[in-house]
Amino acid sequence: MRKAFHEELDRVTEALVEMTRLASSAMSRATTALLDADVQLAESVIGADVEIDALREELDLLSFDLLALQQPVATDLRMVVTSMRMSSDIERMGDLARHVAKVARLRYPSSAVPPELRSIILEMGQVAERIVTKAGSVIAARDVEAARQIERDDDAMDDLHRQLFERLASDSWDHPAETTVDITLVGRYYERFGDHAVSVARRVIFLVTGEQSAESESSHEDVEDDEAFPETTTP
Amino acid sequence: MRKAFHEELDRVTEALVEMTRLASSAMSRATTALLDADVQLAESVIGADVEIDALREELDLLSFDLLALQQPVATDLRMVVTSMRMSSDIERMGDLARHVAKVARLRYPSSAVPPELRSIILEMGQVAERIVTKAGSVIAARDVEAARQIERDDDAMDDLHRQLFERLASDSWDHPAETTVDITLVGRYYERFGDHAVSVARRVIFLVTGEQSAESESSHEDVEDDEAFPETTTP
Repeated sequence: MRKAFHEELDRVTEALVEMTRLASSAMSRATTALLDADVQLAESVIGADVEIDALREELDLLSFDLLALQQPVATDLRMVVTSMRMSSDIERMGDLARHVAKVARLRYPSSAVPPELRSIILEMGQVAERIVTKAGSVIAARDVEAARQIERDDDAMDDLHRQLFERLASDSWDHPAETTVDITLVGRYYERFGDHAVSVARRVIFLVTGEQSAESESSHEDVEDDEAFPETTTP
Repeated sequence: MRKAFHEELDRVTEALVEMTRLASSAMSRATTALLDADVQLAESVIGADVEIDALREELDLLSFDLLALQQPVATDLRMVVTSMRMSSDIERMGDLARHVAKVARLRYPSSAVPPELRSIILEMGQVAERIVTKAGSVIAARDVEAARQIERDDDAMDDLHRQLFERLASDSWDHPAETTVDITLVGRYYERFGDHAVSVARRVIFLVTGEQSAESESSHEDVEDDEAFPETTTP
């Protein structure tokens, strides 16, 4: 029974890691599609999201069966419940990559990103990829050190998000409102992508160490996403 | 044992309903704070979000104990797992109300909402309140008919969201980029608030009827939020 349980739990972990790989690929390709106004690439990201959704569904059924048939307690139970929450986070990361791809598709044949913002968006894409790849290792190896790095990587994302908003609020910003809307939404998608990775990291830290993250009252809690607004847009 | 289990489950339901009440009050007050540039009201919404977070934490611990100590199976297990997911949705609704309040606070003593958009924002706030109140009844009474109404109410929200974006993309829109950013984000907060209520509704429909909602492959899945972008902003 115990052996079977741990084999099943290994399958859950593998599926979670596979989800992070798909989310990483999706966000990386979405960023390229956005910057290069590549509508075929955008379509492929949009179409591929069903794979992440399907994996999530499979994972949730597996977790449900584990609860029903194996009736785990203590740490084992916590691992199953945490896995269900992580699958929800990663599935959402896939949605956010799809959202970025949709903005690319909407503005084709133009790029939604004006030339002077390309480097910031490129960097947000790179940080996103780094974060989700690290989230995969954190899940696979229960690597608490890598989990803590994700929080720092997400600080870099928040900083880029702030920079983006500074540009929108600056006097030199003279693009149409449509572009302002695009950049506002795209910026938020990257930022939320980072938040969900932090959420995954905190859940693993809690599983391994029992420690609540300093920033959250409870590891169960979603990442605060306290950046309703980067402060720099204050008048 | 069974009696104790169902008493505990009633406590879970009550806590979920209480969370919807708090989220409703938060979004209603956040809308007023935003429209009236009432910074004290905004602060009270921002401060009150900890209550929703605390209820969520309490609920999650209770659900975890139910799983560990009562080892429910079949429908009972599904109810506990679904409750954990609903608490996550409603907690997020509270965050979104707080985000709206933060935009109000950021622009004080001005209002973030230009006069010509007041009626749309007011209506989004009213739909949000109607939706979350209905979500409370749906949870309390397992009312499938009310759950289906939530999907329709959310269509009204999506329609308002589209109208908002039409205004931003119109030639007559001549506000600074900062205002465009504010309205883009606020619009998204209301729209996501509605999505989470739909997610709650679908989970209840699935619990009661075993039916998957037409729009989602799985009731486990979060609402698709396919509106990365209201289509009307297409050039």
